[in-house]
Amino acid sequence: MSLTIALAQTNFWVGDIAANIKHLVAAALCARDEYHADLVVFPELCIIGYPAEDLLLRADFIAAANNAIYQLADAVDGIAMVVGFPEKADGQLYNSAVVLQQGVMLAKYRKQALPNYGVFDEQRYFAAGDSPCVFEYNGTFIGLTICEDVWRAGIIEATREAGAEILLTLNASPYQSGKSQLREAVICQQVKAAGLALVYVNQVGGQDELVFDGASFVADAQGKIIYRAVEFAEDMGLVHFVGGQPIAAACSPLYADVASEYRALTLGIKDYVVKNGFHGALLGLSGGIDSALVLALAVDALGADKVEAVLMPSRYTQAMSNEDAVLEAQALGVKYHIIPIEPAVAAFTEMLADVFAGSGKDTTEENIQARCRGIVLMAISNKQGKLLLTTGNKSEMSVGYATLYGDMAGGFAPIKDVPKLLVYQLAKYRNSLAPVIPERVIIRAPSAELAADQKDEDSLPPYEVLDPILERYVECDQTAEAIIAAGFRPEDVARAISLVDRNEYKRRQSPPGIKITSRAFGRDRRYPITSGYRGF
Amino acid sequence: MSLTIALAQTNFWVGDIAANIKHLVAAALCARDEYHADLVVFPELCIIGYPAEDLLLRADFIAAANNAIYQLADAVDGIAMVVGFPEKADGQLYNSAVVLQQGVMLAKYRKQALPNYGVFDEQRYFAAGDSPCVFEYNGTFIGLTICEDVWRAGIIEATREAGAEILLTLNASPYQSGKSQLREAVICQQVKAAGLALVYVNQVGGQDELVFDGASFVADAQGKIIYRAVEFAEDMGLVHFVGGQPIAAACSPLYADVASEYRALTLGIKDYVVKNGFHGALLGLSGGIDSALVLALAVDALGADKVEAVLMPSRYTQAMSNEDAVLEAQALGVKYHIIPIEPAVAAFTEMLADVFAGSGKDTTEENIQARCRGIVLMAISNKQGKLLLTTGNKSEMSVGYATLYGDMAGGFAPIKDVPKLLVYQLAKYRNSLAPVIPERVIIRAPSAELAADQKDEDSLPPYEVLDPILERYVECDQTAEAIIAAGFRPEDVARAISLVDRNEYKRRQSPPGIKITSRAFGRDRRYPITSGYRGF
Repeated sequence: MSLTIALAQTNFWVGDIAANIKHLVAAALCARDEYHADLVVFPELCIIGYPAEDLLLRADFIAAANNAIYQLADAVDGIAMVVGFPEKADGQLYNSAVVLQQGVMLAKYRKQALPNYGVFDEQRYFAAGDSPCVFEYNGTFIGLTICEDVWRAGIIEATREAGAEILLTLNASPYQSGKSQLREAVICQQVKAAGLALVYVNQVGGQDELVFDGASFVADAQGKIIYRAVEFAEDMGLVHFVGGQPIAAACSPLYADVASEYRALTLGIKDYVVKNGFHGALLGLSGGIDSALVLALAVDALGADKVEAVLMPSRYTQAMSNEDAVLEAQALGVKYHIIPIEPAVAAFTEMLADVFAGSGKDTTEENIQARCRGIVLMAISNKQGKLLLTTGNKSEMSVGYATLYGDMAGGFAPIKDVPKLLVYQLAKYRNSLAPVIPERVIIRAPSAELAADQKDEDSLPPYEVLDPILERYVECDQTAEAIIAAGFRPEDVARAISLVDRNEYKRRQSPPGIKITSRAFGRDRRYPITSGYRGF
Repeated sequence: MSLTIALAQTNFWVGDIAANIKHLVAAALCARDEYHADLVVFPELCIIGYPAEDLLLRADFIAAANNAIYQLADAVDGIAMVVGFPEKADGQLYNSAVVLQQGVMLAKYRKQALPNYGVFDEQRYFAAGDSPCVFEYNGTFIGLTICEDVWRAGIIEATREAGAEILLTLNASPYQSGKSQLREAVICQQVKAAGLALVYVNQVGGQDELVFDGASFVADAQGKIIYRAVEFAEDMGLVHFVGGQPIAAACSPLYADVASEYRALTLGIKDYVVKNGFHGALLGLSGGIDSALVLALAVDALGADKVEAVLMPSRYTQAMSNEDAVLEAQALGVKYHIIPIEPAVAAFTEMLADVFAGSGKDTTEENIQARCRGIVLMAISNKQGKLLLTTGNKSEMSVGYATLYGDMAGGFAPIKDVPKLLVYQLAKYRNSLAPVIPERVIIRAPSAELAADQKDEDSLPPYEVLDPILERYVECDQTAEAIIAAGFRPEDVARAISLVDRNEYKRRQSPPGIKITSRAFGRDRRYPITSGYRGF
């Protein structure tokens, strides 16, 4: 028996069922007419996009999603479609997959393994299915699974025991660095153990804090990848099966770490801007490495004509900072404004003189500068309908080295989950494609330039020390003792951890940003603000 | 057989196990020595406070909590203690209750019903127990349950069938308006059906977005409340049981709706300020009803000497606004500053003149004013270590009638979950105790005063119309059709719903505030920002 299966790696819009149906129909017709596929597989919950979060609690939304399945079944004939949707049945909601063919529902599967960790809250919404699903199509017995199902032992085996010769899995598996490799390693091992070829279809695109990388694939019964779709873009794959075994097809390569992170960031920016209807993006350009990288990412995501930069020097801004910022904007062909903040800073200083009489200078005065920049940027953003991008990195977010309503003001924080050392790597990677960031920006010591002769290292351990401590504490939940035992100085560990602990309140008000590590701030790491826990 | 049970309605500090143990020991000794109780019952997870959120993923934290149980067992003799803790066993984490007596663990129970809806994420952390727990103490058979267990059918019955003559339940049940009444009604019905007297111990105190109201109680086997602790304060209750039946004790009354909401808000403010170590609180006083209420709440929570107000008039501020703001500060005995914002607004207008050349005026200019006020307030907050309270209400948060980094700037948003009409009721309630808010502030039409002759009703439906639409849409998930069918004008429903849908991005960056309704913004309502769903 032979069977041709199309993998529809598609980018959906959370919440817009009508648009998603239109997209599904177009993709199905393409699979049928241009690829001559017998069956086309779409991602998990593709009717509504993933994750729809508390939209799943709205009865009207769920009713519309369920009605859409009937509409879709009638809209396309001549090809079977495997589609994910939130199924309402018996007073429960299931994360289901359905096989539609010639207007009828050939089979239906309810996801058994519901992830409720990290960024996932599926047990908030869904009841778990309790049985495998196998259906016959053109003489081949095909099993259905959904995402988490194939990461856990047991479900693949049970589906094979129920008679499956091929396994389809519908996914919404978000990106993090190294995830494609991890995903293939874990799942291919399960596949190999079960001796069952698998078709893995993942969604692609940005959704708030998440980027879905695609990288859909087909593994044969020995766990060997015989087809892979591109990463970070829509793609339609086609694999022929003969007697349950897939015939090798073209494999797109996986990007190496830094290249994949760069693409995840640009896709995340692009989809946030486009799906939220902004006219473009805007950012403050300081001459430092962070804003230089965000500018390059924004231009690569949106095009130079959609991006605008604003230089806002103060008395503490060094000449080379302004020069480098101008060079960056010019190298990328981006329109820029220069708006010195001194008049506003002077006004606030005068306005607050009475209240502050007798007090010494502290970070208050630094924050005022950062917040004056925030007002300028937000004003231009409001006036022009452009999304303001913040430029803070994960190291800063971790230790609170940022000003609320100042440099943290903005709608989206592209490099919020990028540690400072990785910021440098990404900048060098971008320059390796074409030089757009002056070398001096990469070499000079980082400074917030909010006070005279200020350097980040005046108040923080060097990033070569800070970043690995933060990774251990924030991402790996290591204790201070364990981090010190790994060779870090107790005073550095104490400083880093206590800053992380104390700055949850700032992070809670930061704009969303793109998750690229194993644990991002936001939905992925849910800490109380009010907390007596002290990691050190 | 007779038994004297103490209900320790206590206020714990999330994350600080050492402080909580100290508090537990002191309360247990008090129950033993002053109340001569045989057994003292504490709230759910009291060793670590509730909710500890992702601290529960830290191995060191869990190990410390488990060790603390042994420490506690040894610290107090002569009384049995029933204590909640996160139990690590067999590679799983359980939400458990343990009975400690004379240094030994007399019994242990694992919570069976793990809530994973609304503000609760217990399935993110805990595995569910699968069996009831009954232990004998002084000749009486006592059953253990935890919070959600007694809201669901089946678990009380199963515990009675396992031999319980009395049921203890440990709780961390957060406040919302009318919750005490609901709680007693639901649980007493279960109690009556099972024919089992119940001791219900709830925690008290504020924790980020949540307030726990206490209101611990004892119901007899007929479901009649025979004892109730005070609401919104620590309390130690004492009930004697003879032959499994409780002897009636003094019942604190439940506060009526508005009075209970007022107390929830003051407790929430107090605990946020105190537990986070602020020196006091600060707010902008506009002469409007919202800031007038927040000022009164802050003073009632913290004392007048801990609160400071700032008046920041602009050219659009009416004289009566300034006058009323001064009267409010004076009536409550609060120190206040007057800082006109005109110099800063003028500076920004000049700085942005080139970029804005040719553009007409829009909300950008209004936002600049609000943001200048935000800078002034944050500067004073930074300089003095006082928490900045925002004064926005739920109606404004719902429709985005607020300026990010402007009036939304601050660390805590006390009335974020209070609809505008309830703001008026709370203000009148406060004035009924002692007049502190000028009558004119309550009567005059609300205005943001960011443009000439501006009224809220210029851009929004009247609050008498808006608030019930918002309640139906945000709290009850009703559709536009259902709201219109209930008698609201389609254009008002369309305006309100589309504003709610479009303003999720603002709410995501707002400070936390106190949940008092059935669904608050924040952890309670988790909507995507990027969303194609349109409720209208």
